[in-house]
Amino acid sequence: MKGKAKIRVGVLGATGAVGQRFVQMLQGHPWFELSVLCASQRNAGRRYGDACNWLLRGDMPAHLQDIVLEEMGPGIDCQLVFSALPSGPARTMEAELAAAGYVICSNASAYRYDPDVPLLIPEVNPEHVEMIDGQRRGRGWPGFITTNPNCSTTHLVSALHPLHEAFEVRKVFVVTMQAVSGAGYSGVTSMDIIDNVVPYIGSEEEKMERREPQKLLGRYDGTAVQAADFVVSAHCNRVPVRNGHLAAVSVEFARRPSLEDVRRAWAEYEPLPQRMGLPSAPEQAILYREEADRPQPRMDRLAGSVPGMATVVGRLREDPLFHVKFLTLGHNTIRGAAGGSLLNAELLVSQGYLDAGDEDAGSRMPVADAILDGVR
Amino acid sequence: MKGKAKIRVGVLGATGAVGQRFVQMLQGHPWFELSVLCASQRNAGRRYGDACNWLLRGDMPAHLQDIVLEEMGPGIDCQLVFSALPSGPARTMEAELAAAGYVICSNASAYRYDPDVPLLIPEVNPEHVEMIDGQRRGRGWPGFITTNPNCSTTHLVSALHPLHEAFEVRKVFVVTMQAVSGAGYSGVTSMDIIDNVVPYIGSEEEKMERREPQKLLGRYDGTAVQAADFVVSAHCNRVPVRNGHLAAVSVEFARRPSLEDVRRAWAEYEPLPQRMGLPSAPEQAILYREEADRPQPRMDRLAGSVPGMATVVGRLREDPLFHVKFLTLGHNTIRGAAGGSLLNAELLVSQGYLDAGDEDAGSRMPVADAILDGVR
Amino acid sequence: MKGKAKIRVGVLGATGAVGQRFVQMLQGHPWFELSVLCASQRNAGRRYGDACNWLLRGDMPAHLQDIVLEEMGPGIDCQLVFSALPSGPARTMEAELAAAGYVICSNASAYRYDPDVPLLIPEVNPEHVEMIDGQRRGRGWPGFITTNPNCSTTHLVSALHPLHEAFEVRKVFVVTMQAVSGAGYSGVTSMDIIDNVVPYIGSEEEKMERREPQKLLGRYDGTAVQAADFVVSAHCNRVPVRNGHLAAVSVEFARRPSLEDVRRAWAEYEPLPQRMGLPSAPEQAILYREEADRPQPRMDRLAGSVPGMATVVGRLREDPLFHVKFLTLGHNTIRGAAGGSLLNAELLVSQGYLDAGDEDAGSRMPVADAILDGVR
Amino acid sequence: MKGKAKIRVGVLGATGAVGQRFVQMLQGHPWFELSVLCASQRNAGRRYGDACNWLLRGDMPAHLQDIVLEEMGPGIDCQLVFSALPSGPARTMEAELAAAGYVICSNASAYRYDPDVPLLIPEVNPEHVEMIDGQRRGRGWPGFITTNPNCSTTHLVSALHPLHEAFEVRKVFVVTMQAVSGAGYSGVTSMDIIDNVVPYIGSEEEKMERREPQKLLGRYDGTAVQAADFVVSAHCNRVPVRNGHLAAVSVEFARRPSLEDVRRAWAEYEPLPQRMGLPSAPEQAILYREEADRPQPRMDRLAGSVPGMATVVGRLREDPLFHVKFLTLGHNTIRGAAGGSLLNAELLVSQGYLDAGDEDAGSRMPVADAILDGVR
Repeated sequence: MKGKAKIRVGVLGATGAVGQRFVQMLQGHPWFELSVLCASQRNAGRRYGDACNWLLRGDMPAHLQDIVLEEMGPGIDCQLVFSALPSGPARTMEAELAAAGYVICSNASAYRYDPDVPLLIPEVNPEHVEMIDGQRRGRGWPGFITTNPNCSTTHLVSALHPLHEAFEVRKVFVVTMQAVSGAGYSGVTSMDIIDNVVPYIGSEEEKMERREPQKLLGRYDGTAVQAADFVVSAHCNRVPVRNGHLAAVSVEFARRPSLEDVRRAWAEYEPLPQRMGLPSAPEQAILYREEADRPQPRMDRLAGSVPGMATVVGRLREDPLFHVKFLTLGHNTIRGAAGGSLLNAELLVSQGYLDAGDEDAGSRMPVADAILDGVR
Repeated sequence: MKGKAKIRVGVLGATGAVGQRFVQMLQGHPWFELSVLCASQRNAGRRYGDACNWLLRGDMPAHLQDIVLEEMGPGIDCQLVFSALPSGPARTMEAELAAAGYVICSNASAYRYDPDVPLLIPEVNPEHVEMIDGQRRGRGWPGFITTNPNCSTTHLVSALHPLHEAFEVRKVFVVTMQAVSGAGYSGVTSMDIIDNVVPYIGSEEEKMERREPQKLLGRYDGTAVQAADFVVSAHCNRVPVRNGHLAAVSVEFARRPSLEDVRRAWAEYEPLPQRMGLPSAPEQAILYREEADRPQPRMDRLAGSVPGMATVVGRLREDPLFHVKFLTLGHNTIRGAAGGSLLNAELLVSQGYLDAGDEDAGSRMPVADAILDGVR
Repeated sequence: MKGKAKIRVGVLGATGAVGQRFVQMLQGHPWFELSVLCASQRNAGRRYGDACNWLLRGDMPAHLQDIVLEEMGPGIDCQLVFSALPSGPARTMEAELAAAGYVICSNASAYRYDPDVPLLIPEVNPEHVEMIDGQRRGRGWPGFITTNPNCSTTHLVSALHPLHEAFEVRKVFVVTMQAVSGAGYSGVTSMDIIDNVVPYIGSEEEKMERREPQKLLGRYDGTAVQAADFVVSAHCNRVPVRNGHLAAVSVEFARRPSLEDVRRAWAEYEPLPQRMGLPSAPEQAILYREEADRPQPRMDRLAGSVPGMATVVGRLREDPLFHVKFLTLGHNTIRGAAGGSLLNAELLVSQGYLDAGDEDAGSRMPVADAILDGVR
Repeated sequence: MKGKAKIRVGVLGATGAVGQRFVQMLQGHPWFELSVLCASQRNAGRRYGDACNWLLRGDMPAHLQDIVLEEMGPGIDCQLVFSALPSGPARTMEAELAAAGYVICSNASAYRYDPDVPLLIPEVNPEHVEMIDGQRRGRGWPGFITTNPNCSTTHLVSALHPLHEAFEVRKVFVVTMQAVSGAGYSGVTSMDIIDNVVPYIGSEEEKMERREPQKLLGRYDGTAVQAADFVVSAHCNRVPVRNGHLAAVSVEFARRPSLEDVRRAWAEYEPLPQRMGLPSAPEQAILYREEADRPQPRMDRLAGSVPGMATVVGRLREDPLFHVKFLTLGHNTIRGAAGGSLLNAELLVSQGYLDAGDEDAGSRMPVADAILDGVR
């Protein structure tokens, strides 16, 4: 993108927790320029600094305070839209915007399971972007919608991907221990979680068992995604942790790998975003920890060269029932939400779906800095 | 035990966390009279009130404060000994005492896996007490040792027992979320667990996978225990919860039960301790919760008629890989430790292994009161 | 109340956190019979078991599940009404009910500061019930309203009362560390309080500094309460604790007491509810702990013979600036809310304000049991 | 220090929590080069990577893993020594090293209260370095010892300093809510602090009341420090927070300031380290937050341009008993421990007490980066 103007982007639902992460991660982005902040009708017209209870550490960047929140809709001045809307409003608004020509990178679940909408993890299934043409044709939209998966699915499937490529996943047992931020700022009251675990998260197990992993690891045949053929059993739990979803995973493959095979598959994993150096892609997509007691949410949720964007794995060992067992950990509101959509957008640019090319101009550092700023 | 003198009992390791639970649960016990408190050499000779940092809620019962701690050894004045020793000292001391004629109900792991030592859950395998005769003969001991399983195993196997009876367990996948008290008072530093999960507990997975469930559910053939034939895969985690081990469990059986079959097996479960009304046995050994989000550690760890002695199950549903999945929860320092040994002792009395019979004199209430006192 | 019918009572706001405590504490009450559960219009007509998300440990008592919630208003069938309403609705509804002849014991702040409404702690200012006659006359109500103070004020003033009697309080510094339940079930989100302290509680400092302690310790001269003449400086903080408000207090008196004087004033304290043996009054109103590190919320919030109804003090020492410093601790949703209103009601009965006399029939135990049941 | 060699420094107690912070903060330091890591005899000879359980987030810097730990003593190859020793060993070893010519910047309390040893906060009393000459003469040491205060005192006195300069502090009432890391890695067990507050920290109140603030704000008259003349009353509490000590403070001055006066005194505060641009000095020593509910430990403990080195204040308001009240917050293991010693060392360099001058070469960034690295 040398010498080119940045792509103007907007954020829907900018005052919420995920919306704030979008805003934070877009600070100093080499390709994108944050131009429009949209909020609900109630907040439209107010200053961002007034309407938004900034939840991230550090202060809201000063230059954002005076931006006036706009109402969502086809009039907004940008090319690309990041959506942090709840599922209901997302279903309507994202369609309306795509019909008006906008490109949508959505964190909402509204369109994730539609057969013509790509559910993307750029490391895992970048070729699913090809579904976009069919989507546009089929729906008659000049714009289009892409989505990223649920926060728990993201890191599970990221860890499984190189193993699936090499040994073909057949059965997956997964038990999650998920952070409270996954339910949103007010989602888990302190009365429920102090000195406690809540072993239930509404519709989470369905997403992990049937709706997302098989689509993500499926093959796009030019017409439709052929879902990958494996079975997942998921137990989802909420634990007293602020950020970072941990999961205990046991896997059976079509071809039994040795532990060394698995370790090597992770170590040698170098998917597209890393090869292309997309700005928000961490140098290593999967980080393996050797210690007996890692990964841990507080220690590892911001690991890697772009904090919060990598998946951390550890405790690889033989499984008495299946083949191997291990742990996965990842940041749920960075890679598991806003960061997932952002990397999707970078993938779209790199694949020519947004007219602003020349991705080699990208530098990872501004993104890393923006996040760390929030970490302080 | 109408009209009979109570059995005099001692506690080894009385100042520690498990030792204090023994002391607490023995207050007002209808069959046992706490006669001797033993501590390490360092503390022998001191008042219990001075040497012991009482960790349970409520005050140390006043009449215990002035008891002088004794040194462990064959001289102590009691018939039955509860052992809250660490594994190393337990190995030596428990043998020494059994050789001197004492009956040992031990919470230590030292002898759990010895083929002639019963590993008991009175609801599950009361007939394993018959191993005692062989143990005495083989070792030439006038006394003998019995043990209870690890805190995590206890509640898993308790929940599985009626299902194993009816449908025969073949494969078990279990992920625990264990309370910090399982590691002892100083076992988990606050620096490690605030806003965190530690996905590792030394040697816990081995115990749950290979060493305990198969012995507990095995059949005693008059000579040895034939281990039950099923495979367990365990992932053990430490979560920021004080008391109560929660476990997510998936099970495959020899004969596939419906969910209703499983529910009925739990509902109709009425094992020996309940039928005999042993003083520390809760009216229902297994409590099933109907809510979508239960059991929860803080809400359910003291459920049942004798607080902390029951196993609570919930969230029963079909498992996509095995047959059923569900949650188990139980108190780790009550039933999972001291309470386990205490119920073993009551079983021994009821089976005539301790000369004080007449178990129908037992009333549950004093035990419940003693625990609740601690709960305040 | 031997041989007399129990007084029929109702609870306003029965589905909320404080409402549930009322319901819990009224189980088996020797004088009161829970007859009416009222909820908002939205929930009226529903079964209590369906409308209420039971937050207390243990199950909702089975016989309550089928009670049909009624709409609040003058038609309800009871004599005495406990109000767990928010301040706004309380202002309207409590007046309406008092005008219709009901006796109101309210936990709401709506009428606390009205000069003709008694703000009561039965141990501290039972004679303030005499304000009731003036209230009835002045407002022309056949019924009347009494209130209990804020959860933080309650335990501070309880601890100060015997000292004020003996040495006259002049200056009080108090810094609270308050439990999350003080803000209601959804009041504090887990995102705000994990690994954190929130040093602000809306309008709490005003209540503690100016509005409540001086009225509570004031003298009723037959016409009005002459506010006690001392100054309070309060800093109020929210800490990651479920129940139990802890406060660090420094006090200066008109007459400097020795530490021994203070200890004796607490030890010899035997106010009216204790002398009369009111059912919900703990045997000792103030419990002094000798340990260097007590009281602690988790250890001491349920101390005393009626769990949660006593005030626990400790760490008494000389203050370099004032005279003495110490800690106070008390349960905020038991004595600090529902239990405060309940004891007020018992005071009213004992003083003849409710036609059901004969208080010596009262036994403490049912109340204690009901609470402990919830504690499991 | 342009063109000059860096000063070679060592760390005593390098494997502990404070020792690790020293190591972390010295990475890339513009003036100091970490040359020697010392540990207890037990660990001497081992690799740092093997002997040290790295507690900070992120990995131990790779180049440190192979450094061989040395035994403490006069043979170590460095000029300046940072001491993270416990008080007992510090008393002996620091004297031995000073006698051998080393400069000691100690975080231990061993020498803090000796009348010839400077207790330094470079923003507050940099002129106390002049005590060094007397110390050397009096003790006959070629080297010397400087100390930094306790973690709680540091931030209290930092916030008071500009107010003391302007209005003269007379009375201070302070209640701390301190993080668990203040007690060291294993100092607070999780059993004690989950769902709890421990209202006692051994000898902490003495340090805050009598031993440190008056010396820090005292005047050095060329011979001795004349302690400042004010009285402090302190209540110290441990709360379930990992890092960051929060304190509620009320102050009376010789001259009553308006709130605006206080705010201005903080805003205009520009002490020596900031004017000189010492590498570890944050641009603003005191940060004032305007929000009603700040500072908060999790949100603000790493505020400022050098994370963890600033003191954050907020909630300034009139005090009913004294003049003003407010909150202070600061990072206890950065500025309150290792960072305090490090800034002392930088002060010594800038004042010519270590032969390596030219402080304007200093850049803040490497220090900030090193800390943030740990923060991930």
